Amino acid sequence: MNPYQAPLAEMKFMLDKVFDAPNTWASLPAIAENVDMDTAVAIMDEADKISRELIHPINRSGDEQGVRHEDDKVITPDGFKAVYDQYAEGGWVGLCGDPEQGGMGMPKMLGVLVDEMSYSACNSFTLYGSLTAGAALCINAHGSDEIKEKYLPMLYSGEWAGAMDMTEPQAGSDLRNIRTKAVPNDDGSYNITGSKIFITGGEHDLTENIIHLVLAKLPDSNGISLFLVPKIKVDDSGTLGESNGVTVGSIEHKMGLKASATCVMNYDDAQGYLIGRPNRGLICMFTMMNYERLAIGIQGLGTSQAAYQMASDYAKERVQGVAAGGSPTGASSDPILVHGDVRRMLLNIRTLTDAGRALSILTGKQLDIAKYGEGEEKAKAARYVGLLTPVAKAFLSDRGLDAAIMAQQVFGGHGYIRETGIEQLVRDTRIAQIYEGTNGIQAIDFLGRKVTGDNLAALTEFVTECNEKLSQMSHVDEAHKEKVAGLFNQLLAVADKVNDNKTKTPALINSCAVDFLDAFGHILYGYFWLLMADTAVVHEDEKFASQKRHLSDFYINKVLPKAEYHLAQVSAGDACVMNIPEEMF
Amino acid sequence: MNPYQAPLAEMKFMLDKVFDAPNTWASLPAIAENVDMDTAVAIMDEADKISRELIHPINRSGDEQGVRHEDDKVITPDGFKAVYDQYAEGGWVGLCGDPEQGGMGMPKMLGVLVDEMSYSACNSFTLYGSLTAGAALCINAHGSDEIKEKYLPMLYSGEWAGAMDMTEPQAGSDLRNIRTKAVPNDDGSYNITGSKIFITGGEHDLTENIIHLVLAKLPDSNGISLFLVPKIKVDDSGTLGESNGVTVGSIEHKMGLKASATCVMNYDDAQGYLIGRPNRGLICMFTMMNYERLAIGIQGLGTSQAAYQMASDYAKERVQGVAAGGSPTGASSDPILVHGDVRRMLLNIRTLTDAGRALSILTGKQLDIAKYGEGEEKAKAARYVGLLTPVAKAFLSDRGLDAAIMAQQVFGGHGYIRETGIEQLVRDTRIAQIYEGTNGIQAIDFLGRKVTGDNLAALTEFVTECNEKLSQMSHVDEAHKEKVAGLFNQLLAVADKVNDNKTKTPALINSCAVDFLDAFGHILYGYFWLLMADTAVVHEDEKFASQKRHLSDFYINKVLPKAEYHLAQVSAGDACVMNIPEEMF
Repeated sequence: MNPYQAPLAEMKFMLDKVFDAPNTWASLPAIAENVDMDTAVAIMDEADKISRELIHPINRSGDEQGVRHEDDKVITPDGFKAVYDQYAEGGWVGLCGDPEQGGMGMPKMLGVLVDEMSYSACNSFTLYGSLTAGAALCINAHGSDEIKEKYLPMLYSGEWAGAMDMTEPQAGSDLRNIRTKAVPNDDGSYNITGSKIFITGGEHDLTENIIHLVLAKLPDSNGISLFLVPKIKVDDSGTLGESNGVTVGSIEHKMGLKASATCVMNYDDAQGYLIGRPNRGLICMFTMMNYERLAIGIQGLGTSQAAYQMASDYAKERVQGVAAGGSPTGASSDPILVHGDVRRMLLNIRTLTDAGRALSILTGKQLDIAKYGEGEEKAKAARYVGLLTPVAKAFLSDRGLDAAIMAQQVFGGHGYIRETGIEQLVRDTRIAQIYEGTNGIQAIDFLGRKVTGDNLAALTEFVTECNEKLSQMSHVDEAHKEKVAGLFNQLLAVADKVNDNKTKTPALINSCAVDFLDAFGHILYGYFWLLMADTAVVHEDEKFASQKRHLSDFYINKVLPKAEYHLAQVSAGDACVMNIPEEMF
Repeated sequence: MNPYQAPLAEMKFMLDKVFDAPNTWASLPAIAENVDMDTAVAIMDEADKISRELIHPINRSGDEQGVRHEDDKVITPDGFKAVYDQYAEGGWVGLCGDPEQGGMGMPKMLGVLVDEMSYSACNSFTLYGSLTAGAALCINAHGSDEIKEKYLPMLYSGEWAGAMDMTEPQAGSDLRNIRTKAVPNDDGSYNITGSKIFITGGEHDLTENIIHLVLAKLPDSNGISLFLVPKIKVDDSGTLGESNGVTVGSIEHKMGLKASATCVMNYDDAQGYLIGRPNRGLICMFTMMNYERLAIGIQGLGTSQAAYQMASDYAKERVQGVAAGGSPTGASSDPILVHGDVRRMLLNIRTLTDAGRALSILTGKQLDIAKYGEGEEKAKAARYVGLLTPVAKAFLSDRGLDAAIMAQQVFGGHGYIRETGIEQLVRDTRIAQIYEGTNGIQAIDFLGRKVTGDNLAALTEFVTECNEKLSQMSHVDEAHKEKVAGLFNQLLAVADKVNDNKTKTPALINSCAVDFLDAFGHILYGYFWLLMADTAVVHEDEKFASQKRHLSDFYINKVLPKAEYHLAQVSAGDACVMNIPEEMF
């Protein structure tokens, strides 16, 4: 197998031309002082290099070896610590972090591309840094100045790691039922006691300290509050002191992601510090979770890209059978890329991956404008972040699994063998559909809160803007434009019907949400493909533009019709789902 | 987790009422002398018992421990040998075998249900017996009387095992390129030399001998011949002699199916015996492969059923969140089965599994009539076997993976943990889409050979019969009948278009085959659901009939529309697949 190579030309085209990073950044002073396209390109080039040369080499061995739990320690696979040190020294953990606290202040619109490369190279490794960046983001948004100054520089530098402690055995999707308790001390700190499960990076040997963000309940309160709980206490000078009643109970044995430590964490009167206001812990978490949800979507996207590379390389090398209608070279056996079915699978992966990158960058762009912009632009971006985030998380991670499975199919029997590595992608990316809120919950957030919560205002605004841009495109097929615009309008009509019936039939949203999100995702990708094909016409490389046209044609003809299937399911309503008595299951 | 329980009431209803086993068997003398419904029910009851009590208990431990390769031996996980001995002593390996050679002579229509139970209980274990039954079938159809008498009783009794040796590193989907050689000896035997890969059950410790069916080429021939090669030589009296130049080179490390030995087999002047005529080895293999392909489809079906049971049990037990519109019991947390999205997933699995069982039984029934029937009935059944077999293999195994993944999603985070066992189903069943001919190859066989090969004659005959039966149904919704019949007619129209263009655009079939098969499968399942609902009306248990109505409504409203998406993809043709130059991948 060739080592992973970031699709740099694609990425630069998308950032520069399709989503107009130069003008976007120029309009955001906080970003403009840190980055321009030249800097961004240099960062991408370097990220490609470390993804390929540093991170990818520990992917397979990490899967084979896995993390180990010995006594009170969790030991990462060989090489992880050394790679992590180099990664942290390069400043990658703090790439999008606050410059006032030692972060590099890069826009998320660029950060998503770096994340994608890293996830393509190794799912397990990338999670450690991603969780740390997420924890830092939350602390920066809701922590006191004292807390920020004490913890953020160490998190951005990667010297310390972060972890999010939410789930308990009886409280997964429904966090109301958490039992971890926080008892106030006289000095303003709290004593945290309880047990958490499924804590990614809860304990490991990569850093000397781990900063946990723990959801817990104050005495006599049903509200949920957020606490910062360091594994090892930190004194006022920032020096590490004694251990803090934070211990790992066990690690989970999982389908994949074996080099990522998934821990049961126990808190026994551990000293913690309130982040944000009492009983407002979920709100603090949600600030961060928009970023984390996007990051998990990107785990799926990175997997898709890696799967595509492996499968297309294999399809060019593996010789088997002869092309229908005769070998193009007169050979007795052709590379399997000549076969329509192999091409069908590769083109499915490819078109869903490239459009997925568009979704990732657009969501990153809206996060940047929502954070650094002003006035109505900022407010609109915040609405779009709300709309796009659950879609990015669910649709990118769902397509990530699809891509890995299709790529595995291209490998035939060899795809089932661990040696080729493609089956690891299937196992590793499967979790992305589950954690950070299952994709079902993302869809319910999308249809229930984001789409019908404001009676379709944000969705209509977004779709109208897409349809306006479609009407301005002059280099793509009119019929294709009409098809996508027509489907967007059908989507609005279906959403309207759901909105009208949401009170009368309360189970409607829960029953139809996944299909509604899938319909939106497929139509949005149709829009992205036309946008990419239209924009590429001006690209200096004629082949590049031609490829975008071909891929766009494939997507519109072959993949987009799936949107109608999903819309049909939403239109079918919830009666046939809900009417069946429980005992008949 | 509850241990597996075969859906006996479903199975009996399908066999007895939906597919009319009593009259079918009464019309086939060779079957009628061995079995009636009472005997069949007794066999199903016993198969349920051994699946649950004997086979299922070694499923998880077998996955954890896996097979081991030590020196020249392959050692199965703890318990496999003891369970296999009991299984073999019960006569299960020879269930559908020829009674003249010690088989039980049971119809495949019943055998498919026993296979399903066994695959539900443990994928890995079931393969050993399945391969043996397949090898026996091939020997019985093409071997000389001497060979049959020598080997079949030992295979049916399970004292010896069978294996199929086809694939070589350079010859997977395309067997033309095999290099294994067969050199004739003076005594009529052949010396076989070469190396085979991906040999399921190629070596193991369950039986004292393993009978390999090996594809090889005669000197100066490009034709492929089939040879029986015992691991240990057998003398004229049936006594085991010396070893036969058959050795295991290594075993594969796989994504799943870890208790099934997948071997590299080396042949070094091993003594073999020609099965069938020289250069006609593939034809001999194909006799058997109709059965084996169905068996691998049933691997997917058994997995679906196991996944459904686990997920529906979990959904009834796991308490999280409150029903939309308020808890039905006034509780503060409800079982997750109240949630529309959880129901949607369970109903998808359930409706695809039950209809899958219909496909499995119908295909088994056609195999029985094709084998034991007479005249035009027999000929028609042979045409239907040709038509249905690739669909059963591909559609059942594809839906098996879908089911396992959806069931895993119902488990949330717990589904990713090995402990709950659901992730093993995903890993184990994934291979069923690949081996015995990838599902892409099944689809090309279906559309290229079975559908357009006779210019739609067999497909039209089959669809006409289904539509006639639809028109006779009096207990189901007229609109549903029209919908299914309409889709069948659309399918014929699309097939007609493909047939008209197959010469002009030679890549069309290869490019569109998978979608065509998926369209057919979804429409066929719509027909099966109406057939089941219509038949169930006379069922003594009113709840049973009501459940079938509910499930049928769900399938027609929510799943069937997918057929239109697949038909749209076929109609979109192959241009957008084939026009993209190779260098753009």
